[in-house]
Amino acid sequence: AIDRLMEPLHAADIADFLEQIEPHERRRLLEIWQGGLDGEILSEIEDSVREEILGYLSPQDLTDAVRELESDDVVDLVEYLDDDQQEAVLDVLEPLDRVAVEKALAYPEESAGRLMQVETVRAPEHWTVGETIDHLRAHSDELPEQFYHVILVDPRMKPVGNVTLGRLMSSRREVRLADIREDLFVTIPATQDEEEVAYAFNQYHLITAPVVDEDGRLVGVITIDDAMIVLAEENAEDLLLLAGVGESTVSDRVVATTRRRFPWLAVNLVTAILASLVISLFEEVIAGLVALAVLMPIVASMGGNAGTQSLTVAVRALATKDLTGSNVLRVIRREVLVGMINGVIFAVVMGVIGLAWFGEPLLGVVIAAAMVINLVIAGLAGTVIPVALDRMGVDPALASGAFVTTVTDVVGFFAFLGLAALVLL
Amino acid sequence: AIDRLMEPLHAADIADFLEQIEPHERRRLLEIWQGGLDGEILSEIEDSVREEILGYLSPQDLTDAVRELESDDVVDLVEYLDDDQQEAVLDVLEPLDRVAVEKALAYPEESAGRLMQVETVRAPEHWTVGETIDHLRAHSDELPEQFYHVILVDPRMKPVGNVTLGRLMSSRREVRLADIREDLFVTIPATQDEEEVAYAFNQYHLITAPVVDEDGRLVGVITIDDAMIVLAEENAEDLLLLAGVGESTVSDRVVATTRRRFPWLAVNLVTAILASLVISLFEEVIAGLVALAVLMPIVASMGGNAGTQSLTVAVRALATKDLTGSNVLRVIRREVLVGMINGVIFAVVMGVIGLAWFGEPLLGVVIAAAMVINLVIAGLAGTVIPVALDRMGVDPALASGAFVTTVTDVVGFFAFLGLAALVLL
Ligand SMILES: [Mg+2]
Ligand SMILES: [Mg+2]
Ligand SMILES: [Mg+2]
Ligand SMILES: [Mg+2]
Ligand SMILES: [Mg+2]
Ligand SMILES: [Mg+2]
Ligand SMILES: [Mg+2]
Ligand SMILES: [Mg+2]
Ligand SMILES: [Mg+2]
Ligand SMILES: [Mg+2]
Ligand SMILES: [Mg+2]
Ligand SMILES: [Mg+2]
Ligand SMILES: [Mg+2]
Repeated sequence: AIDRLMEPLHAADIADFLEQIEPHERRRLLEIWQGGLDGEILSEIEDSVREEILGYLSPQDLTDAVRELESDDVVDLVEYLDDDQQEAVLDVLEPLDRVAVEKALAYPEESAGRLMQVETVRAPEHWTVGETIDHLRAHSDELPEQFYHVILVDPRMKPVGNVTLGRLMSSRREVRLADIREDLFVTIPATQDEEEVAYAFNQYHLITAPVVDEDGRLVGVITIDDAMIVLAEENAEDLLLLAGVGESTVSDRVVATTRRRFPWLAVNLVTAILASLVISLFEEVIAGLVALAVLMPIVASMGGNAGTQSLTVAVRALATKDLTGSNVLRVIRREVLVGMINGVIFAVVMGVIGLAWFGEPLLGVVIAAAMVINLVIAGLAGTVIPVALDRMGVDPALASGAFVTTVTDVVGFFAFLGLAALVLL
Repeated sequence: AIDRLMEPLHAADIADFLEQIEPHERRRLLEIWQGGLDGEILSEIEDSVREEILGYLSPQDLTDAVRELESDDVVDLVEYLDDDQQEAVLDVLEPLDRVAVEKALAYPEESAGRLMQVETVRAPEHWTVGETIDHLRAHSDELPEQFYHVILVDPRMKPVGNVTLGRLMSSRREVRLADIREDLFVTIPATQDEEEVAYAFNQYHLITAPVVDEDGRLVGVITIDDAMIVLAEENAEDLLLLAGVGESTVSDRVVATTRRRFPWLAVNLVTAILASLVISLFEEVIAGLVALAVLMPIVASMGGNAGTQSLTVAVRALATKDLTGSNVLRVIRREVLVGMINGVIFAVVMGVIGLAWFGEPLLGVVIAAAMVINLVIAGLAGTVIPVALDRMGVDPALASGAFVTTVTDVVGFFAFLGLAALVLL
């Protein structure tokens, strides 16, 4: 019965469904649905749920599931498992497959070597179209399920070009491969960070790219579908980091989620206390005019928002390599100018509101001036901080937010209360 | 000389370089570099810079550049130009190409029809491998530059399957196409939103997908490289929207940037004023104990951060369809629990700090209680608000932030000052 429900679904959709139900429902379902969980579904399931399932999957089901996968998918499946679970999966592989997987696992985490499949389709560059097609036909049972190029290699197994299958198929048999190779040819070092790999695929519209070892020899190939997944993950990572959430998904459990959110909230508490210390410098000023306590969060909040705007644009532009040494000064100048213009507009608005609300002209002037100062600083800090972190090798998505809001809180309260102390008392 | 500098660079890198220099440098460079700007570079350049360049590019250069592009790239080039500029580009196209481009432009913005190329490679399903290869060889000059599948069509031009070129090439000549088609076959309606298209490519690891009209007939094909660009754009859009920045890039000018950031800052001002109104309810309480003014931003700030964490996870999960009717209650329950646990931890920390700082035990109790309340509400609002907006058809990335921080500000100040009024006075 379950088979009939699941059959029309794609493995990725079944995986999503399994992720969305409760853990005990999941276990129940998999018990009833004996042998239904194939390798494809398992490799589509996200890490935390997969670990849970591997905890109770029978050795036979595991063997059946894993043996049908290609090397890159097995790597993806096991790379973040703990040693016992990883060992259990590797043990059920055929010896040759195991060697391929272990070779890939020897490359650093999140590197091209982890992403590539070791199965490649290649030909010497001096071959003709006819020779190549005959060879492919003769070895059709060894070919990977999906491939889109024939990689040309020199005698030392260094990749020297790509021929698309479309070109191969529509050329005459006597044409030499070297004469129909693609103009664009990009090779990827096995140790390259997967983020760079995804960037190269997106920037150059690659479909497949050969992966080479430190001697420039072919060791595997990466296909765009896997690069697309990395691109999506890296984008999600930046989004979540900017919001102060580490890697996390809606299927995480309560304890894991609490633990991941805690550090950022702790950092924010420190930030908030710093801001409070600034306020406490002006306790007497506030005691003298409580309207200041009412208005002060406005200045800080506007600065925080403007700073977040600037820093998000900067973090995004750093990730897409659109913010570089050649335009950083121009971008900083622009952000400061934008902060100044918006600052002046909102200064006028808040000046009028402040005056109308509390009937104190000087209060309007103070909040207006503080607004301009804080929005200019927000534009400056929102760009300089992520750029500086990036140059220091720190992920700007991770740390910029805390720094920028600290700056805008401190400056916001200090400018507003400080000016008030000068002008009003 | 410029040619020698530019020659080794890929069009996408030249485009990035052109985006990063100052407008007057750009114009200067393109004047000197007569005829250097080809179609590929032009189609890689981002919208705002492209518009600027089209404003002064000579008709001859424009013609040369545009004629070498495939239909989907011309569409991408002209779709957001103003009518005059669009007309100027369409005018230089060959009549047949113009028809193809205009057909695509007739589909809604950001739809599959805008994304597809009209050049397809197809074959009747009853053909054999041999017939297909012979046909491709005979028509090799009409084939698109890049293609990876042959689309099988029925007599009424409805696509019924895909055969990969790898499979085609490695099968014997007498094999029928229908017998080697891929298991997975997804067609895309021409009016489908491009975001859904990108989702399908990523979810099902598609490389190409046929696009069909309302009668199910083949009208074009989308390739993964274009879907990958959409995926990256949609992710960037969510990131920027969450930060209160509309579509924008580092190459935008000051005025355009100011105008795009203004609305969100205006919304935030309203939010901040609402929070101030809450504070003003308690002016007398604050006047009685200025320590409250010092501590109150902490509660609001922690709530804002926790709310942003929850809402970012929710917005992301909605975009990837990982948050659906079947797990929404579980996710809400989890977020509330996480808020409660972190709330209690930070309540204890802040209770102790409050006591130590101001030597007033009840103040510690008040800030602790307000912290728990606000973090629970943050978890609740951070999930319920984006889900509700999504169900109402509003983009949760666009509007959630303002609502959630309004809630956490109002609740934060109200809980803290209200409890203080009850307990301390
Ligand atoms: Mg999934
Ligand atoms: Mg994979
Ligand atoms: Mg991986
Ligand atoms: Mg793969
Ligand atoms: Mg990473
Ligand atoms: Mg990153
Ligand atoms: Mg670019
Ligand atoms: Mg670009
Ligand atoms: Mg394109
Ligand atoms: Mg487009
Ligand atoms: Mg294309
Ligand atoms: Mg969109
Ligand atoms: Mg969207």
